[in-house]
Amino acid sequence: MTKPKEYILRVTCPDRFGVVAKVSTCLNESELFILESAHFGDPETNKFFMRVKVISPNKNFKFSSFEKKFSLIAKELNIEWTLIDANFRPKTAIFVSKYSHCLQDLLYRESVGSLPLDIKCIISNHPDLRKIAKSYEIPYHFINMQKLSKSNAEAKINKILSKEQVELNILARYMQILSKSFVNKHYGNIINIHHSFLPSFKGAKPYQQAYTKGVKILGATAHYVSSDLDEGPIIEQTVDRINHSMTPKEMEVIGRDIESITLAKAVKYHIEQRIFLNGNKTVIFN
Amino acid sequence: MTKPKEYILRVTCPDRFGVVAKVSTCLNESELFILESAHFGDPETNKFFMRVKVISPNKNFKFSSFEKKFSLIAKELNIEWTLIDANFRPKTAIFVSKYSHCLQDLLYRESVGSLPLDIKCIISNHPDLRKIAKSYEIPYHFINMQKLSKSNAEAKINKILSKEQVELNILARYMQILSKSFVNKHYGNIINIHHSFLPSFKGAKPYQQAYTKGVKILGATAHYVSSDLDEGPIIEQTVDRINHSMTPKEMEVIGRDIESITLAKAVKYHIEQRIFLNGNKTVIFN
Amino acid sequence: MTKPKEYILRVTCPDRFGVVAKVSTCLNESELFILESAHFGDPETNKFFMRVKVISPNKNFKFSSFEKKFSLIAKELNIEWTLIDANFRPKTAIFVSKYSHCLQDLLYRESVGSLPLDIKCIISNHPDLRKIAKSYEIPYHFINMQKLSKSNAEAKINKILSKEQVELNILARYMQILSKSFVNKHYGNIINIHHSFLPSFKGAKPYQQAYTKGVKILGATAHYVSSDLDEGPIIEQTVDRINHSMTPKEMEVIGRDIESITLAKAVKYHIEQRIFLNGNKTVIFN
Amino acid sequence: MTKPKEYILRVTCPDRFGVVAKVSTCLNESELFILESAHFGDPETNKFFMRVKVISPNKNFKFSSFEKKFSLIAKELNIEWTLIDANFRPKTAIFVSKYSHCLQDLLYRESVGSLPLDIKCIISNHPDLRKIAKSYEIPYHFINMQKLSKSNAEAKINKILSKEQVELNILARYMQILSKSFVNKHYGNIINIHHSFLPSFKGAKPYQQAYTKGVKILGATAHYVSSDLDEGPIIEQTVDRINHSMTPKEMEVIGRDIESITLAKAVKYHIEQRIFLNGNKTVIFN
Repeated sequence: MTKPKEYILRVTCPDRFGVVAKVSTCLNESELFILESAHFGDPETNKFFMRVKVISPNKNFKFSSFEKKFSLIAKELNIEWTLIDANFRPKTAIFVSKYSHCLQDLLYRESVGSLPLDIKCIISNHPDLRKIAKSYEIPYHFINMQKLSKSNAEAKINKILSKEQVELNILARYMQILSKSFVNKHYGNIINIHHSFLPSFKGAKPYQQAYTKGVKILGATAHYVSSDLDEGPIIEQTVDRINHSMTPKEMEVIGRDIESITLAKAVKYHIEQRIFLNGNKTVIFN
Repeated sequence: MTKPKEYILRVTCPDRFGVVAKVSTCLNESELFILESAHFGDPETNKFFMRVKVISPNKNFKFSSFEKKFSLIAKELNIEWTLIDANFRPKTAIFVSKYSHCLQDLLYRESVGSLPLDIKCIISNHPDLRKIAKSYEIPYHFINMQKLSKSNAEAKINKILSKEQVELNILARYMQILSKSFVNKHYGNIINIHHSFLPSFKGAKPYQQAYTKGVKILGATAHYVSSDLDEGPIIEQTVDRINHSMTPKEMEVIGRDIESITLAKAVKYHIEQRIFLNGNKTVIFN
Repeated sequence: MTKPKEYILRVTCPDRFGVVAKVSTCLNESELFILESAHFGDPETNKFFMRVKVISPNKNFKFSSFEKKFSLIAKELNIEWTLIDANFRPKTAIFVSKYSHCLQDLLYRESVGSLPLDIKCIISNHPDLRKIAKSYEIPYHFINMQKLSKSNAEAKINKILSKEQVELNILARYMQILSKSFVNKHYGNIINIHHSFLPSFKGAKPYQQAYTKGVKILGATAHYVSSDLDEGPIIEQTVDRINHSMTPKEMEVIGRDIESITLAKAVKYHIEQRIFLNGNKTVIFN
Repeated sequence: MTKPKEYILRVTCPDRFGVVAKVSTCLNESELFILESAHFGDPETNKFFMRVKVISPNKNFKFSSFEKKFSLIAKELNIEWTLIDANFRPKTAIFVSKYSHCLQDLLYRESVGSLPLDIKCIISNHPDLRKIAKSYEIPYHFINMQKLSKSNAEAKINKILSKEQVELNILARYMQILSKSFVNKHYGNIINIHHSFLPSFKGAKPYQQAYTKGVKILGATAHYVSSDLDEGPIIEQTVDRINHSMTPKEMEVIGRDIESITLAKAVKYHIEQRIFLNGNKTVIFN
C-alpha cells in the first residue's frame, strides 16, 4: 500500500475578497484536501500570500489535470503559484570560509533527518574545512580567490551549481561578497547568516561593534541575500544576553550558538516553503 | 458612511477531508470574505477546529439568512459553531484577594484600549483592594468568606454574575478554591493565573517550592479552571531566570511581572476567540 | 533594638593588583562586614570598579572615622568613592508626555515597595496625565513648551528640581529633546527609555522603522541620557518577537510592555547603586 | 617569557563576618592578586561560598608556602578549600546510548576550544555511536547491559574510569539508571541532561508527557546525578516555546537543541569551577 501524497500549494496575487474560498473549492474539487493553510493580505502592498498543505488520497492524482483546472482561477485572480511535493529536499550548496560551527550544525541536522536537504557540495574560499566535508562524504570545492578574479571565481561556482542543479545556496559564515549579477541570478535562493541583530551592526566585526557600543543583548540574523550588502529580506532573528565583563572573543562564542540555530530555522522555513518575499520583507507562515 | 462589519466564525467538528473548502465556500456565498483563517485537525482526538475572521461589505447582511445556509453544512459535517462580532467585549468579573498587580495590570490595559473588556465588577474575599476599584469607578463586592459558608458565598457571587450577565471570569490572584459546581457552571469562562510553571509546583507557595528545589527558571501559567485544582487546560506560560542568591520574596517580585503579562495574554486570546478547548488541552490560533 | 545598618561602598580607580584586598581589609578593620561584593577591571580602559554591600553590627559606627581611615587607601590607590545607606531612596522627578504606560508602571512598583523611589514630582510638556498624578497625590508640573523658549522651559524645570533636591530624573516616554547644558548638568542622573533596540532605530517612530525593515524581534533600551541624542550609555535592553502580520500599531502595544519592564529594571539598578559609567558604556553588577 | 599563571581558589565554610577580608588579605600577602571574585552566604543553611580567580605575577610561586599560610585561616574559619590551575581540563568520560546530538555538540565544542575537556573515553550501552567516536579518535567502550548484571557492568565502567583517572562524567542522554553505590562514589562529578523542565516531567518520555499535558513551553535541565532519580541538584535550565500543533516527535526535535545547549553550559560552569553544592541545590557564580 502506498501512502497518500502530500503537496504544498503556494499562491501570490493582488489582495481581494474571495481568494481563500475560490482556492479552497478548486482544491476540494481536485480531491486535494487541506491539512494546513495560512494566508496574509498585506494592507500596505495590497498583495495576498497563501500557503496550503494538501493531501491527495486519490492515487491517480495528475498534476496536469489540476493545473488545467487551477489555471482558470489563476488567470481570473492574477495568481502566481506553485504546487510541489511536501517532501521536497532541495539540492543544496553550502558556502563556507574558515568558521565551521554553522556547517557542522547543518550537516548534523541533515544527518539526523531534522533538515531535509540534499547537500550536493560545499564551496569555500579556503581549504580549511575540507576534512569535515570528507567525513560526511560531500564534495568540497576550494575556489582560490587569491588567484582568480571575482568574475572568474563566480563563473567557476556557477558551473558547479549548474552541474549539480543546485536549488538552494546557504552561506554558512561565508566571508566573501558576492557580485550583483551572482546575487540577482540566484535571488530568493541564497540564505545568509549575519552575525548581528540587523540592522544594528552591518559590515565587518559586529561583535567588536557590539562590544564598543556596550549593548546588553547580542543577535544573529538570517536573511535572503540581496544586492544591497546586509540588507536583504530578514527571515529569522535570535538573541542572547551579554554583559560588561565579556570580551569580543567571548561574545563570539555566545554568538556562534545563536548563529547556528538561527540559520537552521531559516533554512527549515525555506525547505518547507513557508517564506514569501514581500518587497524587502518576508511573510513567514510558521 | 458605516465601516463594514467584521465577524469571527468558530467551528468544531469531527476531522474529515473537505471541511475548509465547504466552510470557505459557504462564507463566500454569504458575502462574508475571509480576512484571517486558521484551523487544526488533532490526529489524536480526531477533532477539527477552525477560526475565521470575515468582513461583510454588504451592509444588509443578516445573521438569520447566513444561519439558514450554514446550518445545512453544519448538519452534514456535524459542526458546532458560533458567529460573533469581531469587536466583542465580554462582560467581565475580576476576582481578587490581596495581591493587586494582576488587577492593576488588567485595569490599565483596559483603560488604554489594549484589552477590550467590559468590566462589570470586582469580586473579592478581602476588602483590601477596594480603593483601586474606586479609582477606576468599578463596583467592588467584598464577600466575607469568614462569615459565609462556601455555598452561600458562591450563591452570592452567582447572583452578582447573573445580574451583570457576566461572560468572563478572571481570577487575578484569587486565593480561594471554587467549588466543583461553580466551576462546572462556568467552565471555559474562568481564567486563572497560577504563579508557577505548571505542572511543576501545584498548590500553595510555589515560590517557596521553587526556592527549595533550587530551580533556575520561574514560570507563570494562565489556564481555564477545571474541577481538578491547578489542572485545567493551559492557555499560556511565561518564564524568567532566577539564581541561587534570590530569596523566595525576591522570586515573588520577579514572578509578579510574568504573572501579569501571562494573564493579560491569555485574556486577550480569549476575547479574540482564539482558544478552543480540546479535552484537557487548548488549541490556540495566535 | 535597632537593626544593624547596611551601606553600599562604591569604588573607582586605575586597575592594579591588590585593590580588592586593601579595600576588604580596611572595611573589616572598620567593622563593616561584607555581605555582597563585585568588581571588574576593564582591560581596555584600565579602570577598576567595585561595589560592596556591608553591614555594620556596631551601632556606634561613625562615617567620619571610616572616612579618615579609608581616605588613606583612597589617596594611595587614586580611588574615587562613596559610602551611602543601602536603603537610599533617591528624590525623583518623572518626566512624561502623553504615553502613560511607563509612568503607571513606575508608580505601581513604587506603591507596592518594589522600587524604593521618593517621587517628588511629575514634569510634563502636556497636561494629559495630570489625573494619574492626582490619584497618587504627586505634584504635576505642566510646562507649556508652546509658549516658552527651550531655555526658559528648562530654567523652570531646573528650579523645580532644585527646590525638590531631585537626585534622579526618569524620562518615562518624555518626547522632548533636552538641551546639552541641561543634560551635562544632570549627567548620570537622567535615565531614558528608548522604544527600540538601540543602536537599531534611533530617532522618531522606531516602530514604523521596525515595520518597514521587517525585523522579527522588537526591543527597548534604557540608557543614561548624554548630549548625543539616543547615544548615551546603555543600561538595559529587552526584546520580544513580532511577525509579518503585525501593524506598527500592534508593534507599539507589544513594545509598551517591554518599555515598562526595561525602564523599571534600569531604575532599580540605579537605585541599588549597581551601575558605573565607563566611558560611553556601563558596568552593571547585577 | 612565560605568562603569569592563574588559579581558582574555592572556599566553603560556616557563614560569619570577615571571611572575605581575611581571604583577600591572605591572597594578597601571597602575591596572588584577585582578578575575579564572587561569594554568597546562604541565610538558610548558614553556609558561605567563595570563588576567587587570582593571578600570580611571581614566577617562583610555590603552592606549599601558600598552603602553609592559608591553612591557618582555614583552621580558624573552618574552611574547606581548593586552589587549582585556572586552565584545568578535567579528564572526562562521556556516557551515551542511542541519541547522538549531545555527544556531537560536546565533541564539536571541545574541538573548537570552547569547552576545555580532556575526553578520555565514550562509554555506551549500545554500539550505535561508535562511528562518531572514531571520527574524533576517542576510545569507545560498548558495555553490553543485556549480557552483564548491573553490578558487573558498573564494575567494568569503574575500571575504565579508574584507569583513565576520569574526573568528570557527562551523561549525554545516557538511558541507563546508575546504581546508588556508583552515584555515591562519583557524587558531584556526574552531570546529566534531563529532557524536561524538572521537576515537571520526571521519568521516561517527558516529551510525551508534555504533549499530553498541553504545556506551552518545553525545557531541559542539567543537574548533578544523585541517588534520587531525576532529583539531583539543578545546574542549568533552558526553555523554548511549543504549541498545540506539534507532535511529540516535533517536540523532541525542538528539545534536542535546548538539551545540547543546556548540557554544554552546565559542563562549562563545572570546568570553570563555578558550581558549589549546597544541600540539594547549587550555588553558581556565573
